Amino acid sequence: MTNILFAAGPDRWDDWAPPLRAALDQAGLGYALAQDMAPEVVDYIVYAPDSALQDFTPFTRCKAVLNTWAGVEAVVGNQTLTQPLARMVGGGLTEGMVEYVLGHSLRHHLGMDAHIVNPDHDWHWAPPPLASERRVTVLGLGALGAEVAQKLAGVGFAVTGWSRRPKEIGGVRTLNGDDGLAEALRGAEILVLLLPDTPATENILDAEALALLARGAFVINPGRGPLIDDQALLAALDSGQIGHATLDVFREEPLPKNHPFWAHPGVTVTPHVASETRAASGAGVIAENILRGEAGQPFLHLVDRTAGY
Amino acid sequence: MTNILFAAGPDRWDDWAPPLRAALDQAGLGYALAQDMAPEVVDYIVYAPDSALQDFTPFTRCKAVLNTWAGVEAVVGNQTLTQPLARMVGGGLTEGMVEYVLGHSLRHHLGMDAHIVNPDHDWHWAPPPLASERRVTVLGLGALGAEVAQKLAGVGFAVTGWSRRPKEIGGVRTLNGDDGLAEALRGAEILVLLLPDTPATENILDAEALALLARGAFVINPGRGPLIDDQALLAALDSGQIGHATLDVFREEPLPKNHPFWAHPGVTVTPHVASETRAASGAGVIAENILRGEAGQPFLHLVDRTAGY
Repeated sequence: MTNILFAAGPDRWDDWAPPLRAALDQAGLGYALAQDMAPEVVDYIVYAPDSALQDFTPFTRCKAVLNTWAGVEAVVGNQTLTQPLARMVGGGLTEGMVEYVLGHSLRHHLGMDAHIVNPDHDWHWAPPPLASERRVTVLGLGALGAEVAQKLAGVGFAVTGWSRRPKEIGGVRTLNGDDGLAEALRGAEILVLLLPDTPATENILDAEALALLARGAFVINPGRGPLIDDQALLAALDSGQIGHATLDVFREEPLPKNHPFWAHPGVTVTPHVASETRAASGAGVIAENILRGEAGQPFLHLVDRTAGY
Repeated sequence: MTNILFAAGPDRWDDWAPPLRAALDQAGLGYALAQDMAPEVVDYIVYAPDSALQDFTPFTRCKAVLNTWAGVEAVVGNQTLTQPLARMVGGGLTEGMVEYVLGHSLRHHLGMDAHIVNPDHDWHWAPPPLASERRVTVLGLGALGAEVAQKLAGVGFAVTGWSRRPKEIGGVRTLNGDDGLAEALRGAEILVLLLPDTPATENILDAEALALLARGAFVINPGRGPLIDDQALLAALDSGQIGHATLDVFREEPLPKNHPFWAHPGVTVTPHVASETRAASGAGVIAENILRGEAGQPFLHLVDRTAGY
């Protein structure tokens, strides 16, 4: 009997339990799945970082903690967590992220806002350039960033991708390292942030980085709030260096009512909806890792504790 | 010497003449290109339907009229035009159209407007469905519609395409004929109109057609204004049957200031910018047809006068 504790939020149980059971039943595994279980009998924890479970010490037999979120920054530093930790990859996360970034990139590219809000009923004929003339840079080429960069290129944008370590992606100019970062930022008209939140990436978009972008550039951040120096971004918006920022993630969420992003005409706030694990497909990813563990195979999507993601 | 009359608008001459000359020079053709020329010596007319040239009778030696626009409805009925007439295909038209339709489809799919205009600073967490759960129908599968349908499917949408005659497009469910039209409209959540303007397509989106769509559906019309029964659309917007309409083309352009579309909260007006021939690439298309004509080869993109497109 494999004992699986669901600790990914009581309000998510109804969504997750049926597809998890379906996936495990299909594999013929003998298991118990519950929201409450004696810690010393638990084999796997299906987890979300906002769970009440924060002390992993009593889970002496637990083989892996399986995160239902892509982000692990709120759990990776937990000193009581000594078991293997896996991130969510797939499960609708990638599709949702691609749709969000493509949509907002095209919105800025086409200048939609001037048509959506047009109180003077102004017929101002000014066709936009083609996407092939629009330089888009994606920072971060992990599972999400790589797919986003490729899909942006598929729509026709001139895409540059940057990652800490060298990567190759068809149809995308890729750069890496510190020199590569400056080159990736220089002249970019749309900047997409898809880096993990680590000490090395905090405030990566600071005043110096913002100054390298094309004048009037658009910033899209569906990655992590701390990637941006908020005050530097506000200053760049006020000076016209940045034309608009569309932000889905923040240092504090929900974004506090008194945060200047809310009222700034150059900022669009979206409420952390760019990418959300869908239980229907995420359950299959979790189940696969449980089955791999029971078969003695290595877990997929393990987090590198040193790198922090 | 091949004599080419440029009659596509005096304000477009500066854009078009250099790339036209470059393309013809490269082919080594002996030619004269001018905005003014004795009609009886003209071999080819580079044309736009809003040109002052409306009487083709004196152009007795003219081998072809080469339209710089995709649309020909304003010239195809001209009784003095007996020469072959070619439409513009390519020249940036397709790319621009794909970008417009993808952008506005994703805008509606993601519910962007509620974030772009959010005066109450409301953090309302409601992730959208995935594109694969969103039914999109494209009416018209010509050069533009086929490419648009394919690119929408590439982004993940569940796409149905309809055309008068049977067509096959990879990744797209295709339907045709009158029965197919009702089936294509039924339950569609985003409807894209890319049909030509002919007597058979006028008011194709009438009250009956609108009623077949999913409740709260989005309508995107970058095709032709007369495809829509304006009063029926306004009534469907008021009843909630249609959630929003994004319209790029109108029966009268610029859209008159007193037209109810301007003030309706459920309508976004864009000023006929979805697809515009770019001289840089359009000139190559025109030059190729001139070279084909001089080499005795059949012209590309000829208009079928009976069908009207």
